[in-house]
Amino acid sequence: MKLEAVISEVLQKIVPTEDERAFVRELMGELEEIAREKAEELGIDVKPYFVGSLAKDTYLAGDHDVDLFLAFPLDTPLEEVREKGLELGKEIGKTLGEYEIAYAEHPYVRAKYRGGVKVDLVPCYDVRDWKDVRTAVDRSILHTKWVNENINGKNNEVRLLKRFLKGIAAYGSEIYVRGFSGYLSEILVIKYGSFAEVLEKADFILRQKVIDPAGWLKREPEIAMKTVKREVEEDKPLVVIDPPVDPPRRNVAANLSWEKYGRFYFKADEFLRRPSLEFFFPTGKTGGDYLAELRRKGTHLITLLFDVPEMVDDLLFPQLERSARGFEKALSREGFGVFGWNAGRYGAEKAFIMLEIDRIDRPRVKIHPGPEFFTERGRDFYRKNERVWLVGKRLYAEKRVKENIIDVIRELLEKNQVALGKNLRETIRAAEMLVDYVPRSLENEAYLFLSREKDGLKQ
Amino acid sequence: MKLEAVISEVLQKIVPTEDERAFVRELMGELEEIAREKAEELGIDVKPYFVGSLAKDTYLAGDHDVDLFLAFPLDTPLEEVREKGLELGKEIGKTLGEYEIAYAEHPYVRAKYRGGVKVDLVPCYDVRDWKDVRTAVDRSILHTKWVNENINGKNNEVRLLKRFLKGIAAYGSEIYVRGFSGYLSEILVIKYGSFAEVLEKADFILRQKVIDPAGWLKREPEIAMKTVKREVEEDKPLVVIDPPVDPPRRNVAANLSWEKYGRFYFKADEFLRRPSLEFFFPTGKTGGDYLAELRRKGTHLITLLFDVPEMVDDLLFPQLERSARGFEKALSREGFGVFGWNAGRYGAEKAFIMLEIDRIDRPRVKIHPGPEFFTERGRDFYRKNERVWLVGKRLYAEKRVKENIIDVIRELLEKNQVALGKNLRETIRAAEMLVDYVPRSLENEAYLFLSREKDGLKQ
Repeated sequence: MKLEAVISEVLQKIVPTEDERAFVRELMGELEEIAREKAEELGIDVKPYFVGSLAKDTYLAGDHDVDLFLAFPLDTPLEEVREKGLELGKEIGKTLGEYEIAYAEHPYVRAKYRGGVKVDLVPCYDVRDWKDVRTAVDRSILHTKWVNENINGKNNEVRLLKRFLKGIAAYGSEIYVRGFSGYLSEILVIKYGSFAEVLEKADFILRQKVIDPAGWLKREPEIAMKTVKREVEEDKPLVVIDPPVDPPRRNVAANLSWEKYGRFYFKADEFLRRPSLEFFFPTGKTGGDYLAELRRKGTHLITLLFDVPEMVDDLLFPQLERSARGFEKALSREGFGVFGWNAGRYGAEKAFIMLEIDRIDRPRVKIHPGPEFFTERGRDFYRKNERVWLVGKRLYAEKRVKENIIDVIRELLEKNQVALGKNLRETIRAAEMLVDYVPRSLENEAYLFLSREKDGLKQ
Repeated sequence: MKLEAVISEVLQKIVPTEDERAFVRELMGELEEIAREKAEELGIDVKPYFVGSLAKDTYLAGDHDVDLFLAFPLDTPLEEVREKGLELGKEIGKTLGEYEIAYAEHPYVRAKYRGGVKVDLVPCYDVRDWKDVRTAVDRSILHTKWVNENINGKNNEVRLLKRFLKGIAAYGSEIYVRGFSGYLSEILVIKYGSFAEVLEKADFILRQKVIDPAGWLKREPEIAMKTVKREVEEDKPLVVIDPPVDPPRRNVAANLSWEKYGRFYFKADEFLRRPSLEFFFPTGKTGGDYLAELRRKGTHLITLLFDVPEMVDDLLFPQLERSARGFEKALSREGFGVFGWNAGRYGAEKAFIMLEIDRIDRPRVKIHPGPEFFTERGRDFYRKNERVWLVGKRLYAEKRVKENIIDVIRELLEKNQVALGKNLRETIRAAEMLVDYVPRSLENEAYLFLSREKDGLKQ
């Protein structure tokens, strides 16, 4: 299939139709109306703003998540913005139907409207300029404005790039994804002109390293260079100086990981060589037998199942990751080879951590390294241990240890020797542990993990 | 038992009796006579010198190894010393009975006399002074002279120290022992006055670090300090500036290892706390069941048996050590935990290497780390491998590997991936490999190794 043909077929699927646009316009009108009414009823002085992909006309067909910002005058005290903003959000939420409180820097209301459209009602300041910005969300207003002023009709190119990034699993700036954000995709298209150009420049962009669409390096060289230096030192794959943010201290790509850029890097090249719809709309991962994978590899699978407190994914997933890495590190220290880990939700109230390891049992003794022999601690070590020997100036001793990995994990948890997510410490300590076996509903997850279909670049 | 009582009992065993002294005097007289005669017969101008513990009267009762040096005038060309020295040695050897050629810096004759006394006949120069020294052995003449001038009647204190060091397995300067030499023992007694003083100062000596009996640091500060600096940088446990050697460039303790000093360190302390004959004359290691040790520890024993070319221990042992360390390193790289190694002769023409490892089998796949993804090599790695993924900017792939350790070792040897002693490469490649089993005559060796009775400080 030719590139143009693929692109035109994808566009048919992702560009909203006139009907859909009309629906969105109507939706936004209604929401704005409701917000104004409720603000007036409560006597709160706010201006409703739409931000995000709906406001920028870069949303994908069928994806109508609304970001409605409730902007307070600049002279409102922060505490009032927080309180009144939440109060107003709740009132609007009630009118729309169901809602819940979500937490970012400040709490906000997440409502559902017209049987499914997600509406985030976020209090903020009515900023005109970077100098006015007081909370993290205020920037969104400036971003929306900048994109609309610079996109120059390339909205569908952004849609293509976003859909491509979703298809290859490199989209999303959530802390547990660390992929390309919508705003970053928009900047890339604005800077390089089209979807295809961005893909063709996957290598160039990485080598160039710095993207500075607003020319900050000329306008404010000192601060901008400091930002570049800091981000390069932190070994970020890209440094994209936020165009409407002055002083230029912010890297739009600060959360982009090397792994996600790497996916983009290889998939961009593959797509340009052999264009296909598959990149945008991957057919479901092929299922397989996780037990056959274990036999093929000769490895073992430990699965921990545990209750989780009520938490949004933004909070839960980083803690699951931290805990899984904690197990990886602690078990490696104990002499088990950890091939990989995987974690996620299991049903509504539980989560799982899977660890692929090289064996179930280890020897009954471990070599315990001690201090240098001619120190106080060395003489102590010599006195306290049996079977002591020297390698160079360092003492070693034999230490009796638990053999079986389940006993090892129990002991590590009891002795508090696994770094765990802070809200998961208690519940992981009470986890159920399964060896080379998972419940039916996790079988596919286990297969995708063990076969590396889940996080791999290539099978 | 009191210290004095132990010492006096040990002295009874190690100080030669008057009869023995008479025998030694007679022996030396005869040997000198024979050497003179043969030199005259062959028309070679040499002076026979006795060096070593017999000449210094620091030999242990029953230990009559003779070092007879054949000293040539200083103006003799080196080639002539080599050739004529060997010729003369052979002639003397013939007169004494059986002899063989041994190899150090130069070849020399090792003869047996009077049914068992070992006599080394070593060509050298007739040196008066360090400036005359031309070959490594020439120094021995100076050492013998210096000790005799300074020992001041402490000969039995040296005997005690030497016997103690033998008892705790810390004696011998051979490259595969790296313990205390006889000369170093003599210097320590001369410096600190007695056997007990040397033991009491085990910690002090290490902290002091530098021993300079001839005051070179004052007489030749620049060169002596350079020697100290060099040896400290090489992390030697002690720096003993060779007293009769000018310029002072030589550390008498250059070959002393931390492990052997460590044995001395702990055993000296234990002996002073609870003096006993056992330190000087250890009762034979207790035997035990090596299979029971393997079960207790949950580890495994791989034994390689192979032919060895005719080689003296001084050459063979370092090569066995190098080969064993080679296996340790290569197997660790392959994911096997190596708890320790052991090597030695097995019968007259074979040698063994034992490796204690944590398991016999590993998984069928290995995680193969690749280069950074955005490089030429990275793109290559991506193309060539299946199941590729990223961790940070680095690519990884799954690699099929041999599971069983014997197959792994065979493959490592075939691919030349084990560092081996240079004369053992071929023969180790054809080694017989045994798993958790050794021939009857190695059973005790295996037990001593696995139980750490062999190289341990403490059981």
